[in-house]
Amino acid sequence: MNAPTGRLTDNFVLPQPYLLFLGDTTEAGYAKTAFGLADWAPDRCIGELAIGGCTVTAGLTRLSPAEARTAGARSLVIGVANQGGVIGESWIAALVEAMEAGLDIVSGLHVRLASVPALAEAARRTGQRLIDIRTPPAGIPVGNGRKRSGKRLLTVGTDCALGKKYTALALHRALVARGIDADFRATGQTGIMIAGGGMPMDAVIADFEAGAAEMLSPDAPAGHWDVIEGQGSLFNPAYAPVSLGLLHGSQPDMFIVCHDPTRKTILGMESFALPSVEDVIDMTIRLGSRTNPAIRCGGVSLNTSSFDAEGAEALMAAERDRLGLPVADPIRGGASFDALVDNCLA
Amino acid sequence: MNAPTGRLTDNFVLPQPYLLFLGDTTEAGYAKTAFGLADWAPDRCIGELAIGGCTVTAGLTRLSPAEARTAGARSLVIGVANQGGVIGESWIAALVEAMEAGLDIVSGLHVRLASVPALAEAARRTGQRLIDIRTPPAGIPVGNGRKRSGKRLLTVGTDCALGKKYTALALHRALVARGIDADFRATGQTGIMIAGGGMPMDAVIADFEAGAAEMLSPDAPAGHWDVIEGQGSLFNPAYAPVSLGLLHGSQPDMFIVCHDPTRKTILGMESFALPSVEDVIDMTIRLGSRTNPAIRCGGVSLNTSSFDAEGAEALMAAERDRLGLPVADPIRGGASFDALVDNCLA
Repeated sequence: MNAPTGRLTDNFVLPQPYLLFLGDTTEAGYAKTAFGLADWAPDRCIGELAIGGCTVTAGLTRLSPAEARTAGARSLVIGVANQGGVIGESWIAALVEAMEAGLDIVSGLHVRLASVPALAEAARRTGQRLIDIRTPPAGIPVGNGRKRSGKRLLTVGTDCALGKKYTALALHRALVARGIDADFRATGQTGIMIAGGGMPMDAVIADFEAGAAEMLSPDAPAGHWDVIEGQGSLFNPAYAPVSLGLLHGSQPDMFIVCHDPTRKTILGMESFALPSVEDVIDMTIRLGSRTNPAIRCGGVSLNTSSFDAEGAEALMAAERDRLGLPVADPIRGGASFDALVDNCLA
Repeated sequence: MNAPTGRLTDNFVLPQPYLLFLGDTTEAGYAKTAFGLADWAPDRCIGELAIGGCTVTAGLTRLSPAEARTAGARSLVIGVANQGGVIGESWIAALVEAMEAGLDIVSGLHVRLASVPALAEAARRTGQRLIDIRTPPAGIPVGNGRKRSGKRLLTVGTDCALGKKYTALALHRALVARGIDADFRATGQTGIMIAGGGMPMDAVIADFEAGAAEMLSPDAPAGHWDVIEGQGSLFNPAYAPVSLGLLHGSQPDMFIVCHDPTRKTILGMESFALPSVEDVIDMTIRLGSRTNPAIRCGGVSLNTSSFDAEGAEALMAAERDRLGLPVADPIRGGASFDALVDNCLA
């Protein structure tokens, strides 16, 4: 019987496969985590669970907790958020039922699962774990800067929330499709659920930030690639320490700059201009070369969702000419994305 | 009656004045915190307490906890460290006696005071607080980058442990001596005890690192200076996130680079060369200008403790010529230090 721990296990692996919990959600926008999981980790998702009034679906088989457990599920993942990031009162009976059926509960919400008395009581009674993805694993060391074996690619950005996770997932998928041994290394809540483990970099104590990144991408065979999900931006006045610790500790050989050409200022900080792609390349090389002197930029991932196909193609071509680097939108894929992958491997 | 809280109060002020606890220490090297307090904060120290076998002194009146309380003391500060940073078994009776006399206990050791059962029990019984300086205050916000009023000076370094705290204290003392309204803002354990409060920057969660620095040096009158104790180095592969969050959140108008000319590699990481003073100036301006475009270097604080007076003077003169900036050793003081202060205020 497992004791409730409230955090990722020491080797930061989540119990899998998952039963995706959709709650009583009626707004698709609140179920983005569930959609991301069904999209990027279908092999880790054994079914979905909805309760009264729910009108959204991730397209998976609807299963009761007991049916999911019988089919092999090991945890229920909360795949929805509501306003405020809290646990809905209406969800509790279903979460307790899941624990009684033998499933751990996995959450990326701000509120700690164990702070809900009914869940804490059920965890004690059933021996199932309440796993908060925002709580880092125990035993993170101070960084040591030692060069590790294997290859590493990090997605960086001109800002938050413009495609660093998606780009890393798409690059990982492309490497695997080419027969290359590669792992996606997750650093945020949704990424960690998709990967089945990872490191919540924004929740680590600053002194251990680089050490946490070192722990996330350990020594690997020479031909192996870790594709590491970036966080924040070196130019973000609030989150740059997270980005710098991730850069130093990841010691990437290659980085891809993620950018949204329609964004002019830092998200939520309108007095701060967005840095240029060139500024980000320059600063990432300057700072990243401290732990990997061979660091180089593999290209640019452009979020062209505001453009039609023709406009996107013209924009990417112009950026390609201007920067002298591969430029692609991984959501559009195609030859330009293949060229970006080629350059990373060159 | 206060409830035990285990952290700095919300406005991060320690209960003062202090009774300095020297334990049963026989090695002066273990009492550096006590010596620093007696040196830099004599007005906050009402006396010292030693127990059987102690052979060191901070030069203060020896007082029992009850005598210290009567004389106005509000807390006992553990001014010594042991190997391993633990609470000595032989100390416990004295610490319990201090709580019974009405003193809170303040510690900068790694071990949490409340993890020692006898201390936790005494705190509950007496209502005195067990304050771990390494535990940040509650309610630290995410950084917002807003420009604050007043002037700020930050000490930065080519590495850890080469004089950033001492330099900040000396600069603060020099400003006050010139009649300037100034505060020393502490960011490490000893500094926080000296200042009577502060922010343990290395113990803050990375997402809140810049916000913690913003909280530490709030809006102030136009002519007021905050002299902020630096931490780590932007070039340290383990601690750079702490340094960057402190730089962004402090938004300094002025910085002083602290350097030890005899150190060639990063402390504890012999494969990493120490950056040059010029590298540190350049990187600090590049990164610091994100939140304060007017940031400039006020000069260099050189740790010349390995040189005789003549050698130190020659070295400082050579560095002054090479860099075109004031160079001084605050421990030696003198005209060169006055010139450095002049340049900060120019």
